[in-house]
Amino acid sequence: MSKYAFGIDVGGTSVKLGLLTTEGEVLEKWEIDTDVSDDGKNILPDIAKALKDKMAEKQISADEVAGAGIGLPGPVDEDGFINKAVNLHWDRKFNVEEELSGLLSGMRVKAGNDANVAALGEVWQGAGKGYKEMVMVTLGTGVGGGIIHDGKIVAGADGAGGEIGHLCINPEETISCNCGNCGCLEQYTSATGIVRLLNEELERSDEDSMMRNREITAKDFWECVGKGDKLCLRVAEKFGEYLGLGLSIIANVLNPKVFVIGGGVSRSGELILPYIEKNFKAHVFHACADAKIVRATLGNDAGLIGAAKMVID
Amino acid sequence: MSKYAFGIDVGGTSVKLGLLTTEGEVLEKWEIDTDVSDDGKNILPDIAKALKDKMAEKQISADEVAGAGIGLPGPVDEDGFINKAVNLHWDRKFNVEEELSGLLSGMRVKAGNDANVAALGEVWQGAGKGYKEMVMVTLGTGVGGGIIHDGKIVAGADGAGGEIGHLCINPEETISCNCGNCGCLEQYTSATGIVRLLNEELERSDEDSMMRNREITAKDFWECVGKGDKLCLRVAEKFGEYLGLGLSIIANVLNPKVFVIGGGVSRSGELILPYIEKNFKAHVFHACADAKIVRATLGNDAGLIGAAKMVID
Repeated sequence: MSKYAFGIDVGGTSVKLGLLTTEGEVLEKWEIDTDVSDDGKNILPDIAKALKDKMAEKQISADEVAGAGIGLPGPVDEDGFINKAVNLHWDRKFNVEEELSGLLSGMRVKAGNDANVAALGEVWQGAGKGYKEMVMVTLGTGVGGGIIHDGKIVAGADGAGGEIGHLCINPEETISCNCGNCGCLEQYTSATGIVRLLNEELERSDEDSMMRNREITAKDFWECVGKGDKLCLRVAEKFGEYLGLGLSIIANVLNPKVFVIGGGVSRSGELILPYIEKNFKAHVFHACADAKIVRATLGNDAGLIGAAKMVID
Repeated sequence: MSKYAFGIDVGGTSVKLGLLTTEGEVLEKWEIDTDVSDDGKNILPDIAKALKDKMAEKQISADEVAGAGIGLPGPVDEDGFINKAVNLHWDRKFNVEEELSGLLSGMRVKAGNDANVAALGEVWQGAGKGYKEMVMVTLGTGVGGGIIHDGKIVAGADGAGGEIGHLCINPEETISCNCGNCGCLEQYTSATGIVRLLNEELERSDEDSMMRNREITAKDFWECVGKGDKLCLRVAEKFGEYLGLGLSIIANVLNPKVFVIGGGVSRSGELILPYIEKNFKAHVFHACADAKIVRATLGNDAGLIGAAKMVID
């Protein structure tokens, strides 16, 4: 009976690592740099070394470890193949699970997309605990998502399930999203999207606002919403209209029990929720309307916790 | 080892019944009337009698039957509970599986929503055969849908998964859908929706059209599209814009391998597909763009075939 599992959350700048019990307790967490030189070929060997060093330090034997789960910034299919990961400078299709397992003397390895893995973390130990049908929406620089069905990740046919940042919710939009399409959810509800909505509103009217003549960040924006700034309240309404509509669409497709909102934007507090809920209720089909909308609770640890869960049955 | 399974597809007017082999061959199919008198309390007893009579006629013993699957016009949760079914005059929440099993001397019974069950039929024996990630869209009087993940139905938390007819794809719409919301996919892509789009176009312009001064049906409309009627071609474009957008949204959420288009509208032929595909490609996220769009092949039998599959492992 294994006692431990490793969780790995790979980003473009750093790799977060965690040693967990198979019950989900994080015993230790640490970070290493992501070495993107030479097409990122050192990333997996660096991770393997870090895990081996930790096992030596803690005197943990291989048979005490259930395995290592790894979340990656790109689509990962059911068999563990990743096809490019721009942020890691990976430009080839290869099997991450096999390669990392080989570097770890055959340790069991499971790989997944980082947003999906974070969703698994929240449903296992966070805001989605106790639910089996859950959708996580991560509002950061971009908008990501992860679908949990029957307690497990829905990776989709090509590992691209849960790409909800790119739902087209405004077919009339003429400004392009980073993905090349127009009208994506991400264009209005990411941190960047909120700043854009706010700038548009500041230009449109000459109404006074706490956000005038200063650097604009999503964090400061939500603070001004909290203080009742009228222009900011209008922008918060728009944010809510787009995100509420997006969630209603997802609810009609999947009928989840709960939506978990994570990422930097969600950390601005409970005040973001009523804007989303009101517009969700306005568009959702009655039979799918019972889904709750809550904030994530694991913060930056969701990824490594969910990664570990992939190798724990 | 069981050799047979029953498939049951319950509609508001008639109940379709099928005797299948566990390999999926339909040996016999027949219909009985749906008796909606007395709050529909005779419906399940009538079905039970029909199955028992068939077993007697064919000299099939209970241990040769894997079970009976039943598709119903309403949300059915994972445990077999249905909460109202307007078309059957059922106005209470009860466990269909337990009740029908009791009437069949303890035979194994599984119940599901009719649209979900039809999707299971198409993925088992129809246009989705060989795929594990599939979404079925049924374009009839309304628009229904069924989600297949890992070869199985995604029923959702309340049995209302796949309610894709009520995705809001036009938040600007002011005309109400039957569901009470505005801008639902169903308002533009059901047979009724197509007739509405066509009537609007006939009123808007005074251009000549084969569809003028005659009774308007979706079937005739697609015939005129096939004949190159210019006004009809414009309406077909609109239909494609709405449905292509809707499918792109679903693809970004679920990343299926294939969309199967069923229902009366789909029977108008292959000519409907390019209108959908073009607009699907315009809105889908690149990583989810590989999904194929094909027409259903089982017609009205999808429901009873999928129903039987629910009791075959």
